[in-house]
Amino acid sequence: MKPIVSKDSIVYFGQECYTALNTYLAEANHSKICILVDNNTHEYCLSLLMSKIEKEYDIEVIEIESGEIHKNIETCSGVWNVLSELGMDRKSLIINLGGGVVTDLGGFIACTYKRGISYINIPTSLLAMVDASVGGKTGVDLGNLKNMVGVISESEMVLVDTEYLSTLPTNQMCSGFAEMLKHGLIQDKSYWDKISDLSQLTLEDLDLMIYDSVVIKNKIVTEDPTEQNIRKYLNFGHTLGHAIESFYLTHPEKPTLLHGEAIAIGMIMEAYISAELLSLTKNELQNISEVILATFPKIDINPADYHSIVSLLIHDKKNEKGNIYFVLLSTIGEAKYNCIVSDELILQSFGYYASL
Amino acid sequence: MKPIVSKDSIVYFGQECYTALNTYLAEANHSKICILVDNNTHEYCLSLLMSKIEKEYDIEVIEIESGEIHKNIETCSGVWNVLSELGMDRKSLIINLGGGVVTDLGGFIACTYKRGISYINIPTSLLAMVDASVGGKTGVDLGNLKNMVGVISESEMVLVDTEYLSTLPTNQMCSGFAEMLKHGLIQDKSYWDKISDLSQLTLEDLDLMIYDSVVIKNKIVTEDPTEQNIRKYLNFGHTLGHAIESFYLTHPEKPTLLHGEAIAIGMIMEAYISAELLSLTKNELQNISEVILATFPKIDINPADYHSIVSLLIHDKKNEKGNIYFVLLSTIGEAKYNCIVSDELILQSFGYYASL
Repeated sequence: MKPIVSKDSIVYFGQECYTALNTYLAEANHSKICILVDNNTHEYCLSLLMSKIEKEYDIEVIEIESGEIHKNIETCSGVWNVLSELGMDRKSLIINLGGGVVTDLGGFIACTYKRGISYINIPTSLLAMVDASVGGKTGVDLGNLKNMVGVISESEMVLVDTEYLSTLPTNQMCSGFAEMLKHGLIQDKSYWDKISDLSQLTLEDLDLMIYDSVVIKNKIVTEDPTEQNIRKYLNFGHTLGHAIESFYLTHPEKPTLLHGEAIAIGMIMEAYISAELLSLTKNELQNISEVILATFPKIDINPADYHSIVSLLIHDKKNEKGNIYFVLLSTIGEAKYNCIVSDELILQSFGYYASL
Repeated sequence: MKPIVSKDSIVYFGQECYTALNTYLAEANHSKICILVDNNTHEYCLSLLMSKIEKEYDIEVIEIESGEIHKNIETCSGVWNVLSELGMDRKSLIINLGGGVVTDLGGFIACTYKRGISYINIPTSLLAMVDASVGGKTGVDLGNLKNMVGVISESEMVLVDTEYLSTLPTNQMCSGFAEMLKHGLIQDKSYWDKISDLSQLTLEDLDLMIYDSVVIKNKIVTEDPTEQNIRKYLNFGHTLGHAIESFYLTHPEKPTLLHGEAIAIGMIMEAYISAELLSLTKNELQNISEVILATFPKIDINPADYHSIVSLLIHDKKNEKGNIYFVLLSTIGEAKYNCIVSDELILQSFGYYASL
């Protein structure tokens, strides 16, 4: 598959990843290379990567704890200190090998260590492949507020090798699938139609669907790298999804929600709001709800928590001047940003989701 | 004085600062404005700034503790959280009112909060006016390692009003003066000749000297924003100066050294090394030493500490592949970067400084 060229980066697929990586490493002549992993990718993914690196380099491995709860500034401080102790300099390279937590946090660390050194992202989860691979968004959470601190800056290259997915738990695959569904909903009806019939997909199809998903996202972020306009589309499902995710993250007594599971709920609720406010039809809403619930578990959100979740919306990064802005759908494949939604309609959308 | 235009920012001087500020604020229509101060600028500078802002805006003031020791990631975390609690969004503005600690740290906070919001720097120390006002270097220290974490990104505008200097202690003035001397040494012999006769300077001269100093620095950073080549010149005196500063910062039982005092020592030592390795003449070395010691106190560095200081050089951000690179002078007004210096010669330069 042809590499996808983004603004300052390039995404390689399959075996071509390692050809590109080896060429780059041989030419760039880094003073030192550090591979950032979490405990899972250390165990399941590192040996594959190491087996593909052809020459001997001065490589160090830094491991962080896995999980969104560790995507914070304290973990960054730990890694910055280790980089400094290892003598990493401005000609050093960081390779982030992991899911979105590793690529988001590792990207932020690389962009800020000594005011910025080179880095490469190797996403190992489906979510990171289709979501974090292009666009250069890096960052960490601040308390329970997601991605509150970060920068936008692209990696040298992104390597998408679906072989890493073979050790990924099924529920983690679903998280990535939510983003792929979103790419269809906001931008491409034919992509939605193909991907929404998951039962028919082969593993080879998956490779192609990932590729097309990156193409869709790349088109959007290349046109609007700093989220002035159409990049906001990518927040479809994320306004309510992030609030729900944040809420569950801070209530450990409740069931754990994966990012994609929260976004799946957010997409259904925001599709409901779209049908109420824009021209999305009832049939489309039903289609969206059915497709999402065929893959994602229905979560029983306690109605007593609705208000707490809505109150978290105030921290959404899209907000301006006290207004909470939503991305809504006018039809499948077409989105609209900066939509203002009343609290009442938001609460109704919880009711719609509960009724499914 | 004519505004100085840099890559993405613009520096205003004197009363024109406030005309520009008021025009910008009226046009930009920010959702909220936060002024970041430290306890000193809160007391001595804030009222002057507030008196110049013509319209009523939604303004919040955030105060941090003054001093380099607070220029760290913990202070950032505190401020990020306050910004979030205040509901600052992507259309909000941060105004950094203070010395280099406030502008470096406040710039980093603005560049990373919600992946970057607008900010304005109002330097209130001579050092910040001539050093931190252009070039977009932001950052904080990591333990005793200076500016280890940061980004390069310019503010919307910089306002240089020397009225803020009227409450600045004399020793703090000296710190800025060190950078102005450096600008002459690395780039402009006639500027050096003018500024090195400080005793003849009037307060009006100072305004002009500050202006010329910003012009020199801006020329360099505009040509090489990411420090690939000539921006390295600005590190003259800083390789040893930073190591000496770091060493004294972590040894509170020793006398406190200001940034500029450490850089002054570094410039003398690196001028000595220049005379040994490059074409800087003995007369020039003597001239440099005399001018610097006419303004800066001679510090008795214990020879037992030389090795500890030299060992700190390994963390210098200019280093690549284990080599410690120096910026040296071939003559007054002309510098050379990426010079490799032996440990022996570095130790000799301590001896030279001690002998003065």
